[in-house]
Amino acid sequence: MTTAVLSSLIRPLVEPRLPDWVEPLWFMSKEEALELAPKAEIGWFDFNEPGPMCEVVTAAENLKWLTSIYAGLDFLPLDLLRQRGVTVTNGAGINAITIAEYVVMGMLNVAKGYRDVVRAQDRHEWLHDSPGKVELCGSKALLLGYGAIGKLVEERLLAFGVDVSIVRRSGGENALGPEEWQARLGEFDWVILAVPSTPETEDMIGADELAAMKSDAVLINIARGTVVDQDALVTALEEKTIGAAFLDVTTPEPLPEDHKLWTLDNAHVTMHLSGRAQSKMFQRSADRFIENLDRYERGEDVQPQFDLSLGY
Amino acid sequence: MTTAVLSSLIRPLVEPRLPDWVEPLWFMSKEEALELAPKAEIGWFDFNEPGPMCEVVTAAENLKWLTSIYAGLDFLPLDLLRQRGVTVTNGAGINAITIAEYVVMGMLNVAKGYRDVVRAQDRHEWLHDSPGKVELCGSKALLLGYGAIGKLVEERLLAFGVDVSIVRRSGGENALGPEEWQARLGEFDWVILAVPSTPETEDMIGADELAAMKSDAVLINIARGTVVDQDALVTALEEKTIGAAFLDVTTPEPLPEDHKLWTLDNAHVTMHLSGRAQSKMFQRSADRFIENLDRYERGEDVQPQFDLSLGY
Repeated sequence: MTTAVLSSLIRPLVEPRLPDWVEPLWFMSKEEALELAPKAEIGWFDFNEPGPMCEVVTAAENLKWLTSIYAGLDFLPLDLLRQRGVTVTNGAGINAITIAEYVVMGMLNVAKGYRDVVRAQDRHEWLHDSPGKVELCGSKALLLGYGAIGKLVEERLLAFGVDVSIVRRSGGENALGPEEWQARLGEFDWVILAVPSTPETEDMIGADELAAMKSDAVLINIARGTVVDQDALVTALEEKTIGAAFLDVTTPEPLPEDHKLWTLDNAHVTMHLSGRAQSKMFQRSADRFIENLDRYERGEDVQPQFDLSLGY
Repeated sequence: MTTAVLSSLIRPLVEPRLPDWVEPLWFMSKEEALELAPKAEIGWFDFNEPGPMCEVVTAAENLKWLTSIYAGLDFLPLDLLRQRGVTVTNGAGINAITIAEYVVMGMLNVAKGYRDVVRAQDRHEWLHDSPGKVELCGSKALLLGYGAIGKLVEERLLAFGVDVSIVRRSGGENALGPEEWQARLGEFDWVILAVPSTPETEDMIGADELAAMKSDAVLINIARGTVVDQDALVTALEEKTIGAAFLDVTTPEPLPEDHKLWTLDNAHVTMHLSGRAQSKMFQRSADRFIENLDRYERGEDVQPQFDLSLGY
């Protein structure tokens, strides 16, 4: 028997379908997870916060395969996992559809000034003109990051008549090289961040990049807060050197109650909800886990693998 | 010389391009328009409200061609215009892109519960879960009305992986017959109203149709308030027999301050702003008018013609 230590959150979806060679141990709390962790060959240690996940992973000394519903696992003790030879599968793609939908929603909301329509309804006030008058159609977007999410964003934006440019080493039509996009930032109405969180992408949008953007350009960040120099962003929003920012991610999370981003009238804060705005995440993850158990038993590679060296 | 009585609102876009056979008379107010109207062979009598437009049209006894930026002109004295043999061109298609974008925005906002995210930001509160968890991908939409707007809505929704059914006499794949859609209302997650306002479409969504919808289905109305039996809709929203309504149009407009639709937590009121959420409406209308002047001079049909008998 192979011992799998698994979160009770996914129990109803996984337990009835487990093969008989798996002995599941279910945990409800961090304490239970810490106690069971050393027995785990297979672990699904998801918590809402990075802290407990790191603790439990560290305690799982006999772990061979770690799986998670989350795509971004850069917060885990990656060196430790590598030393122990743990294979990690992540939730890449599980949330991609929802996040792509959220990106387009954000762009449309900023374009049409929809937040002010919501507030007007709350005041019972009939507005006679639209607070926003931008059309997506005919606008230009720079999409940084062309993984599962980026590709789905592109598909949707193309249907809106948005001219989408991506960044890719190999070049191609509507593709800019990695050394090229900074110099061309001034051409875009939208700059969309969908890159993985790595040392290379940290602060990739800083004061210089913000200064190069159009004064009415909108920054969309559904990657990680650390991809943007947030102090520089706050300054750019305050001084209105860019149009607006739609931020699913911030530094830190949660954002402190007195943080400026809450109150800036051109900052849209969406509290890392983009991936949660769906009800299929657990079902998709459970399906994937059951399929991976079959692969694991046959000695095949489980999928999709998180690269502990690259950090995504 | 042919006398054209034109709103000053479009003067900067039209005046420099007028052919020399046109003598323009510009009005600023309803009073000026009423005074000039009898001289008009060509009239562009747009006001924000239907009332003044009807008065000026009635006073324009020598009118041969009436043009408007608006698509829905059902409020005009259509019989009178027909008796006088006036040709009417409307703004069909001018606002279609923006309205189609607004429809998708509305669907995404309802799907993700985004209004509550806006309110949470206003309270500086970091939400830990999404107030809405619906994905457009894989959902089913019934699109009533397949004109310029409906076609653009369909294109966009297909890119989101929405299964879109239309209503069409001639049938076809994913098309329901005019006698068929009512019986199949229970299949759809979204019912989108993009029909013209005519006697036939009045109250086309009444108590029976609302009762036939799924309990979590969302009604989107960007047609006319009169297309829906609004009292029945309010009841359905109060009793939650449908999920929500996203209403760009209501009866009456503006909605009185104490109307229930303002406060129902599943009613989204967008104040007929969908067509105004753009800055290209006047430019597109001006371009179309100048092209039509050429056709008019050559004795060709001006476009697109509003059918005074059909009312759209």
